Parts: sequence; C-alpha cells; structure tokens
Amino acid sequence: MQVLVYGAGQLAQMMYLAGVPLGIDVQAVDVGSETVVHPVSKQPLDMSLMQAIEAADALTVEFEHVPEHLLEEAAKSGKLMPGIETILVGADRVREKHLLDTLKVANCPHQVVTDLAQLDDCVATLGERLIIKASRDGYDGYGQWRLTDASALEALKAQLSSLDLTAVPLVVEQMLDFDRELSIIGIRSKSGEIKVYPLAENLHHQGQLHVSVAPATDISDELTEQAQQIFTTLAEGMDYVGVLAVELFQCGDKLLVNELAPRVHNSGHWTLTGAITSQFDNHLRAVCGLPLGDTVELGPSAMVNVIGCTGFSRDLLSIPGCHLHWYGKTVRGKRKMGHINVTADSYQELGNKLAELAQTLPEEAFPKLAKEAKRLQRV
Amino acid sequence: MQVLVYGAGQLAQMMYLAGVPLGIDVQAVDVGSETVVHPVSKQPLDMSLMQAIEAADALTVEFEHVPEHLLEEAAKSGKLMPGIETILVGADRVREKHLLDTLKVANCPHQVVTDLAQLDDCVATLGERLIIKASRDGYDGYGQWRLTDASALEALKAQLSSLDLTAVPLVVEQMLDFDRELSIIGIRSKSGEIKVYPLAENLHHQGQLHVSVAPATDISDELTEQAQQIFTTLAEGMDYVGVLAVELFQCGDKLLVNELAPRVHNSGHWTLTGAITSQFDNHLRAVCGLPLGDTVELGPSAMVNVIGCTGFSRDLLSIPGCHLHWYGKTVRGKRKMGHINVTADSYQELGNKLAELAQTLPEEAFPKLAKEAKRLQRV
Repeated sequence: MQVLVYGAGQLAQMMYLAGVPLGIDVQAVDVGSETVVHPVSKQPLDMSLMQAIEAADALTVEFEHVPEHLLEEAAKSGKLMPGIETILVGADRVREKHLLDTLKVANCPHQVVTDLAQLDDCVATLGERLIIKASRDGYDGYGQWRLTDASALEALKAQLSSLDLTAVPLVVEQMLDFDRELSIIGIRSKSGEIKVYPLAENLHHQGQLHVSVAPATDISDELTEQAQQIFTTLAEGMDYVGVLAVELFQCGDKLLVNELAPRVHNSGHWTLTGAITSQFDNHLRAVCGLPLGDTVELGPSAMVNVIGCTGFSRDLLSIPGCHLHWYGKTVRGKRKMGHINVTADSYQELGNKLAELAQTLPEEAFPKLAKEAKRLQRV
Repeated sequence: MQVLVYGAGQLAQMMYLAGVPLGIDVQAVDVGSETVVHPVSKQPLDMSLMQAIEAADALTVEFEHVPEHLLEEAAKSGKLMPGIETILVGADRVREKHLLDTLKVANCPHQVVTDLAQLDDCVATLGERLIIKASRDGYDGYGQWRLTDASALEALKAQLSSLDLTAVPLVVEQMLDFDRELSIIGIRSKSGEIKVYPLAENLHHQGQLHVSVAPATDISDELTEQAQQIFTTLAEGMDYVGVLAVELFQCGDKLLVNELAPRVHNSGHWTLTGAITSQFDNHLRAVCGLPLGDTVELGPSAMVNVIGCTGFSRDLLSIPGCHLHWYGKTVRGKRKMGHINVTADSYQELGNKLAELAQTLPEEAFPKLAKEAKRLQRV
C-alpha cells in the first residue's frame, strides 16, 4: 500500500518509519515546491504529484497549513483522510471555534474580531485579560498577542493596525487561569471505531511544547471520561479518519478545548516507545483501513523536545529507557531538532531519569526539564 | 553518522529503520552487483562502493556469507565491525568449531572431514547418529545430511561423492538428544561493555526458525549464568564489536553451542517490540561508539516468522500487542517474507494471543504455532 503525506517534515518521516513494517510505502509532498520526496532523505522521487496521488491508497497531512489549492486537489481524489473540511478547521481558528460551539464542546470564552473597534466589546464582555490570536497561519506562539490591562488596549490596537482583519480575522480569548495543559490523542477508523491514548500533560515555554508526560499524573476517572467524551464528540462530529489531537486546558475538574490538530501530534511522540502501538502506526492503520492497534501505555513516559540545539552529548543514551529521535534537520532558531523519549516503571523512576537527563543537557535549551524531574520524583 | 551494511535484505532494512531516529544514515551493499543501495527501496544510491566505504563511520554485515574479497576490502578501511576474522568464523563451520574448542566453549562432539573415508572413523568415535554439514555456504538447513544408522553410511558416501571436500570440508556432529534450542543475543561495545538480552527459545521446522519466545520459559539462574558466560567468553575472545547471536542446545542443565551468527539475528526480532532497546538499535550504537541501550524485556514476547506466504488477513493486527513487520520482498519458495511480533503481560496471555493468531493464519505455513500457543497457555 502507498500513503502520500502532504508535508515533508519530521511527522512524515516518522510515518514513513512506521509504514515500512506494515508494508506501507509512505511518500511525502514538499508543499513549497509541490514535488514528491522521500520522507527521510527529502530527495525528489521520480514521479509527479498527480502520479503520486493516483498511485496512493490514501492521502493525508502532517500539518494543517497545507496550501488550500493542494488540499482541494487532494480532496478531489476521494482519498484524503481526514477530510479537507477537518484539515481547514485545524488551520483556521474561526472555523475551529465555530465547530466547537456547534458541537457544544467546552472551550475558552471567545469572540471573533474583524475590526479593531470590536476589541472594546471584547474587553467589556470577556474582561481585560485577553489572548489575541491571528485566525490563520499562527503556530508555536507566532501571531499571538496578550492584553493584561485595559489601559494597554489603545497601544495594542496601534500594534495590530497593519493587519487585514477582513482577510484574517482575530480570535480573542479570555485568558484563563487554568491548572495545566493536557492533550488527548486518539484514532478513529473508517468504520467508526475509536481508540484513545492516555492523557498527556504538556509543558510549554514561549509558545512551544517542551515536555510531555504520559499518562498525565493525578487524572481522575471523571477527567478521563470527560476527555474521551470530548474526543468522541469531535471525531464523530467531523466524521474523522486517522489520528486527531485535542489540546485541553484543565480548570479544576473541568476540561476546555484549547485547539485541535487534525494529525499526529508532538504531544503523542511518547507513544513511539511508551505505548504498544505508536500514533504514527495507528494513523497509517486508520487511513489504510487496517485494524487499529492497542493504545495502552507500557508505563510512565516522558517526551522532551530538542529545540534549536544540537550541542549535547550522546551519553544520554546510556540512561536506561532513554531514546533519541533525531529529525536530521539543519539547526535554525527555535526549530524542533528531535526529541528524547524516556520510559520508566514508575513516576518516581521517570523523575530520576529526567533528573539524570537534565544534567547532560544545556539548561537554556531545556528550561522545563529539571523542575519537571523534581515534580515527578515527588509524585 | 553513516553506517554501511554488507547485504541488502531485511536485516539491513531493520538497521536502517533503527538508524534514522539515532541520526545514523544506513546504506546497504548489494553484494551481488557490488552496488550501494537504499536498504528499504533497494534503489541504487548515487555513489560507488569505494565512496560509500570512505564516507562511512562504520562498516558491518547483515549476513556472514559476504564474498571474501568484499570483506577484505572492507577490513582495509579499519572500520569493519565485527572484524573480518569473526565474520569468517560465522561463515565457516571449521573455523567456528576451532574457535569454540580454542576458547573451551562447550559444543557438540564433532570431527572435520576432508575425505569421505574419514566418515568411518566418525561413526566409530561419535556413534552412528550423525549430522553432516557442509562447512561453508550452508544456511537454513541447506547443505546438511543425516545419518541415523551405520548401515546407511555407504549410501550417504555415494550421495556426497561429488563434493570437493578439500575446498569445502564437512563438519560431522554427533546427533544430540537435546531438550530444546535456545539462543542468547548480546552486544559488546568498542570499550568492551557487554549487555545481553534474555534467552530466547527457538522452534525450528525443516531447518528454518518458525517461532521464538523470549524470555524462554523455565530458565534457571544457573542456566542464565551459563549462557552469559558463554556469550562473554566468545565476545571477548573475538574482541567482538556489535550484536552477536549464539545458538544453543539445552541438554538437561548444560548448554552446548550449536552455532554463532556474527550479526543481528532472526531469533532477536522480538526485541523490536518486546525489549527497551532493539537488537538493531544496539548494533548501531555499538559500531558507532554510542552508549548501549537497555536490553531488559517489556514482558513475554513471541516472534512468528512468515515463510513463503503472503495470503493471510491483516486482521491479525487487531490482536492487542500484535505487530506485523513486512520485508517488502517477492514471495519465493520458503523465503522469509516478514515476521509477526506479539507482546503480552504473561505467558498465559501470550499463549492466548498466539492461539488467536493461529486461527487467522494458514496452518501449513505456520505448523508450529498452535502447539506453541497451547504450551504457553499452560505455563
């Protein structure tokens, strides 16, 4: 079988690696040059995009910001999974909020702004502590602004005055005092079967995911059920096929959806070594119509992103249960270069291993690690 | 880093898949055409063998029957691991027996035969129940003959009369009444660190491995220690670097070495899903001078070879903890097409899963499966 993935980054690479054992040949589309490339070497393959679309059993995406004309061409084949509407939901916060509200899925109080004058109404309705997000092309903290005091509103308006809000509206959200960030990742098959991984707890720094721990600690049965209900409502509501990631805020005993990613997700990379079947394996199984694999965890796991950093010793590989997953990219700014997965038999042991790991890594690139290690050591 | 593997079959493919996450680019040598190919697609890469040798950080083999002139060329680079002498031991039963005897490692009583007349002496010394093996180019049961009764000796001599025993001597072994076949797989690093996986129990049929179960059931501490001692003696004796597989016969509380494989081994494929670090990962770590990974098992595992067979339902993937690993080869005779790994929390559960698996697979291609499932269900 063949699967064509739009996007040729690390997620396509990890799908390729999961595909080979399943007998599935994964090819990637470099969406800039619109060429078909090998997902690992990134070398062009000897076929046109149209040929690759025709030859593929399934088409899918590794990121939601695929140019719309490519998505439309892909959708025409009838083999794009998840569907184009769903991918566009992931790429556009206005569509996303509309979907969440339509499906009555709890999310942050928000307003859509197409004119800066509406911001006054936002402050009146949502309060003066706001997060303002461009509705499209924003990721990893780009295209986001914060208001913490109404007196700064005019300055913010001035800052935003050059934006074309008719073309790209803003989504203005109430800044929530949430307890922590979680995510639920699951898979829905063509026949409607759903499996979910245990909830992950995600630590961000400057808008980027730094550390995930799965299963998240201190998760009540009620919280698990709430997350699974949210996942099911969304996946069924979108008639979704494949892996879907749902980012959540926990506020007390209540979960609110922060955002959706219609694809395999960074907070699910722990499944490569920490679950019976990885998210990449399961995504391919779903889009190829194969039975879904078990999503049970093997024990507590952590995933540590390597961001904008290559200068560290490979001695970390000597920590038992510590695996490096390198993406083979050139270092640039805050680029994700790879991740480190750590598995253990208990949270305490996981904490000990992360503490050991923290000592081998430069603190400035891994600012969340030592503290998280300490927290887990005390669980 | 780059590693060049002589041989472009499934073992090179699995090394490639293990290499990508480690940031190691694995290339394969098609030893027939002496060209460098991609280990998965088998497409020729744009480089000569000499260029690949020069660019590689390490050279290694996926099988021991690499033409000697290629091994000599590889050895000249100073980067071949394990060393050429060791690989030749694996390819030549005379050298292998000599090594075992030199290192005083227990093995089957045997004699080397360079003239058919010596067979009479073999019968006199070793008894009339003999296994006669070509010393080179024999694998998976090819190049082997059996004598069970002295009266059949003359007929056997006639059958062997066309062989050039000066070029390729025979190794004649006493046919042992062993209890079962086991294997120990381990890794030795450049600095001499050794790690071993738990013993696997191997079920053969017509000279081919069909099922491995690891950790093997009913292994006493004494037996484990004996196996580890054998492994250490051999690995240190050969100044070995990389993964080494040692096939063993268990006779009561005594282990005898059957044969060595100076490479990753079919009876270690369970480590892909059943151990913290796979044999492929650890082989690359060793030859690249990276720290070795943990060899602890995640639970009881089984590996089931798919031999000469493609016609079975992919529904087996719905069995929890069941993974297919497909090699992407054209079916031909008794070719190994792939393997199925099954992981479980107990032997009983493993047995249940294998029983379920056996029901989805054609019995003629998997003749050992149902019985092994039953055995494990009763452990």
